[in-house]
Amino acid sequence: MSDAPHSASIPFFESLCDFMATRRTIRRYTAEDVSDETLNRLLTLASRTQTMGGLQLYSVVTTRDAAMKRRLSPLHFGQPMVTEAPVVLTFCADYHRTTAWCNCRRANPGYDNLLSFLNAATDALLFCQTFCTLAEAEGLGLCYLGTTLYNPLGIIEALRLPRLVMPVATITLGYPAEVPPTLTERLPLTAIVHVEHYAPATPETIDRDYAAKEAMAQNQAFVRENHKETLAQVFTDVRYTRRDCEAMSRTMTEALRRQGFLE
Amino acid sequence: MSDAPHSASIPFFESLCDFMATRRTIRRYTAEDVSDETLNRLLTLASRTQTMGGLQLYSVVTTRDAAMKRRLSPLHFGQPMVTEAPVVLTFCADYHRTTAWCNCRRANPGYDNLLSFLNAATDALLFCQTFCTLAEAEGLGLCYLGTTLYNPLGIIEALRLPRLVMPVATITLGYPAEVPPTLTERLPLTAIVHVEHYAPATPETIDRDYAAKEAMAQNQAFVRENHKETLAQVFTDVRYTRRDCEAMSRTMTEALRRQGFLE
Repeated sequence: MSDAPHSASIPFFESLCDFMATRRTIRRYTAEDVSDETLNRLLTLASRTQTMGGLQLYSVVTTRDAAMKRRLSPLHFGQPMVTEAPVVLTFCADYHRTTAWCNCRRANPGYDNLLSFLNAATDALLFCQTFCTLAEAEGLGLCYLGTTLYNPLGIIEALRLPRLVMPVATITLGYPAEVPPTLTERLPLTAIVHVEHYAPATPETIDRDYAAKEAMAQNQAFVRENHKETLAQVFTDVRYTRRDCEAMSRTMTEALRRQGFLE
Repeated sequence: MSDAPHSASIPFFESLCDFMATRRTIRRYTAEDVSDETLNRLLTLASRTQTMGGLQLYSVVTTRDAAMKRRLSPLHFGQPMVTEAPVVLTFCADYHRTTAWCNCRRANPGYDNLLSFLNAATDALLFCQTFCTLAEAEGLGLCYLGTTLYNPLGIIEALRLPRLVMPVATITLGYPAEVPPTLTERLPLTAIVHVEHYAPATPETIDRDYAAKEAMAQNQAFVRENHKETLAQVFTDVRYTRRDCEAMSRTMTEALRRQGFLE
């Protein structure tokens, strides 16, 4: 349909493809600030993202204050981007505002449960990812901090998140002061896509899909530096251990309960 | 930095902004198929999205088979897009493949817990949203089905999802056969953005942020059609009731347990 709003011009689509193919996480930033005008424009556009029932079950807390960055830093395991980036954004799953709206309008909200948390987390993450695409296209660099899920209680306290608000993602944002030399590798599509039914992994599909990743010089160096036998062991024994995952699962459950999502 | 990979040209950024500002959910599709070539190109590019530790904790099940669409349809409350779209994509939080890799490589994975589910769901949703942006830019139309979280058990069974795989999002995809007349409204940024600390909602901020939404003719009609007093009541009493949310929270917990994420 030539008049459909979605049939964007081929040059734009090809530009977007080139852009996606070369996007990189940026961890070092120049001293240049990110203006409120730029930030607000990007957030406004990102809010066009699809959202459950149009409710926009998310919010964003912006951090520019140096003292607040120092407070957030250890909660993200001291990653230097938190104090060095001009702005840090914490994206939250948010049923507080919608619940307040209901309470102000003679409606009885029932969103203090796990499903509602997952709906709100979904809204927040989709919104966050659209924001990331827009920000990178604008020329900004960013780093997505998954550590937000590891220390929710400290973040809740620092940012004073009320009941029915949970932090789910953090972005450090600024203008790039580095050009990372190589793109991180990705698995082939055969590892990701299943046709009609899910085809469980077998030793053969694992070899086929992970061989290139395991053969990369940087990954082999990573195995040696960590004194492990295989790349997988670096993940299970060092980066994401059972002990840590189980401890953080307990923390997550406690945070969800404290924020009222497990009533 | 003029040579940074992210400092895309201004025309591209402005094109992306125009594109985002006018994007719409598409629920009706032409008979034209979406080729495997197109689909694979979009999925490959979407996999450039940031991912936890580079692990890509997601997978996608593609549905083209008419019988399978009919089976999925009631699980999405009979929304006609499921049977009418040429292709349906179910995005899954996936620790099955990574766990299989660890088991093949003398590593002891510990990802059968809530935190690991949330990490994988995050990866899957960010990947999904990048895919949506690319697909819409290509000229495809899509509808995001949040219903995936409401009936996970049926979807798990239909798509034969193994342990440590959970469906988290579904996209119906095709070439647009409609041009929806208006953009869905969005809340002003004051509802979404908090500076340094979260500012809880008050009756005044609720009135300020929801007045325009409540005043829209289509929303007022929506209130009348549902025989309610306020728009909020349509959500609490009809669309997302406490009873449904609580029942679906129990189903979700059961599904997470069955898929091994609550060991």
